[in-house]
Amino acid sequence: MRIAVVAGDGIGAEVVAEGLKVLDAVLPGVETTPYDLGAARYHRTGEVFPDSVRDELAQHDAILLGAVGDPSVPPGVLERGLLLKLRFDFDQYVNLRPSRLWPGTAGPLANVKPGEIDFVVVREGTEGLYAGAGGGLHRGTPAEIATEESLNTRHGVERVIRDAFARAAGRTRRKVTMVHKTNVLTHAGGLWARTFAEVAKEFPDIATEYQHVDAAAMFMVTNPQRYDVIVTDNLFGDILTDIAAAVTGGIGLAASGCINPTRAFPSMFEPVHGSAPDIAGQGKADPVAAILSVALCLEHLGHADEARKIEEAVATELSGRTGEPIRTAEVGDRVSVLVA
Amino acid sequence: MRIAVVAGDGIGAEVVAEGLKVLDAVLPGVETTPYDLGAARYHRTGEVFPDSVRDELAQHDAILLGAVGDPSVPPGVLERGLLLKLRFDFDQYVNLRPSRLWPGTAGPLANVKPGEIDFVVVREGTEGLYAGAGGGLHRGTPAEIATEESLNTRHGVERVIRDAFARAAGRTRRKVTMVHKTNVLTHAGGLWARTFAEVAKEFPDIATEYQHVDAAAMFMVTNPQRYDVIVTDNLFGDILTDIAAAVTGGIGLAASGCINPTRAFPSMFEPVHGSAPDIAGQGKADPVAAILSVALCLEHLGHADEARKIEEAVATELSGRTGEPIRTAEVGDRVSVLVA
Ligand SMILES: CC(C)[C@H](C(=O)O)[C@@H](O)C(=O)O
Ligand SMILES: CC(C)[C@H](C(=O)O)[C@@H](O)C(=O)O
Repeated sequence: MRIAVVAGDGIGAEVVAEGLKVLDAVLPGVETTPYDLGAARYHRTGEVFPDSVRDELAQHDAILLGAVGDPSVPPGVLERGLLLKLRFDFDQYVNLRPSRLWPGTAGPLANVKPGEIDFVVVREGTEGLYAGAGGGLHRGTPAEIATEESLNTRHGVERVIRDAFARAAGRTRRKVTMVHKTNVLTHAGGLWARTFAEVAKEFPDIATEYQHVDAAAMFMVTNPQRYDVIVTDNLFGDILTDIAAAVTGGIGLAASGCINPTRAFPSMFEPVHGSAPDIAGQGKADPVAAILSVALCLEHLGHADEARKIEEAVATELSGRTGEPIRTAEVGDRVSVLVA
Repeated sequence: MRIAVVAGDGIGAEVVAEGLKVLDAVLPGVETTPYDLGAARYHRTGEVFPDSVRDELAQHDAILLGAVGDPSVPPGVLERGLLLKLRFDFDQYVNLRPSRLWPGTAGPLANVKPGEIDFVVVREGTEGLYAGAGGGLHRGTPAEIATEESLNTRHGVERVIRDAFARAAGRTRRKVTMVHKTNVLTHAGGLWARTFAEVAKEFPDIATEYQHVDAAAMFMVTNPQRYDVIVTDNLFGDILTDIAAAVTGGIGLAASGCINPTRAFPSMFEPVHGSAPDIAGQGKADPVAAILSVALCLEHLGHADEARKIEEAVATELSGRTGEPIRTAEVGDRVSVLVA
């Protein structure tokens, strides 16, 4: 098993180091190779993501990513040039974001108890408004226009919806909620709704429901317990998973996988949080999201037992927290001892 | 003053009736004319929004709308054909959505006290992904594609941003947060960001900040107290205002205005909630959102004192609630007495 590691910017290096510590404790001997990508390399060399690095990454079984992005780089350069290029080039069409209110933790919602929220968002990762199909005219003049196009294919929509149903089939509550905005985005929404109805027929014992994205955003606050598996498009998934992170106690705990289920290309696992330059280098970032990303990675690579061990250790770690400030390395140490 | 009333579907008629009751109590003698539009008319006659009705509505000072939409009508027919057509034809480019956690009420957030949330979302109302610029090919085949295009003009972006700054200038905290997704939607995001920076120069004593839509969705749950005025595009505003409604105690209380500040066309005032067919006709829908929509309408038409009176009466009504089931007409009666 060969894993490429892109620590990236800000707190990326600190939290990924703890993820690797836990990986080594739970499954010793995995070969990991660091790759230097992100704001620092961009400033030093002007390079964002050289083709040669892309080709090397492609030879790995998976990629562990810390965080990319820094205020010193213009918006879009690293996001489009590195993060989204990885997702698109490696056809990572399932952007998987489990959302749990962990036992022992308290979220911001008054009427929700730990353990009650447990759903997973299957966000489409290779289409929609993320296609980069925009343009503009007359920049800087009163006549300026700018466009962004959402591109959706039956191919792309069908495969991610089928993945969501397959995941629901392996869960207890067996329900898939499709989220879109079919009442306004009638073309893309129609494609999603028709495809959803057809794929649902292949899974007759999975319950289904549909919600508009605005309603889903509301229910995620008023009744997040209702969800099991949510499948949605790239942009809606981006927004909903941040709400999900908020109601489950913050993005310090949220892990995600950018998955190519066919294994034709490596999948990528990363915390949902960003590079948090304001606290970088101080050893106080919570590495739990990076550690849980390692668990998702192991699960994807067929090591479900080790993934479960990490999740259980994280549950123990979180239950034992007393409100003391977090020390990044100590969290990694404790979780490593628990999984070893 | 002439006001057109489109009660619409489901609970629309019930809640609008209470809004009109309160209007008559606070400012007797306003001429109101009912218009029959919505699912019932569509089923009876096949008509969604005849041009003749449009021309009559255009002769009014404002429109009060209840709710449109019913599961018996295919998605998009009434939304695109009636609601969005009104917003677009009457160039209602400011979609105004005040968000308050009213004194005496409890929202879902454990650490937020009544009175602490008080912001307003200025949602662009005539552009973006709502333009209806989508299409598709090869429908129903494996080769199907569908597109949705977000159209943004300097004209449209600038006028709504300027409106947001002007509103912030009249508030206590004087801060405008612009929300977009500039790191992915670089073309439209660039236009929004550059325009925001330029308009901000005209308002040197208004504080500004920028947030990505995913971060804003998160902060709206973890720290909604931070917002004063939010300005954002049509779709982001749709989603954020539903989160705002959720954290301020549900869409039963959220009012909105679709405003054409030039008064070239009538503005429209409507509850954020939908037609709620499941509880229609039972007299148990909360009319507060419709009543507050009347207040927004009066404010827009230059009757600020009457608008304040309604808001104060609503505050009294909400503080006095004891958890008893709501009786729609009784709420209207109580508020009417308070404003008379
Ligand atoms: C950084 C950004 C491009 C990215 C996205 O929008 O997908 C992030 O918000 C995420 O959710 O992974
Ligand atoms: C019904 C729908 C078209 C509408 C919108 O998306 O604008 C609604 O959600 C709203 O927020 O007023």
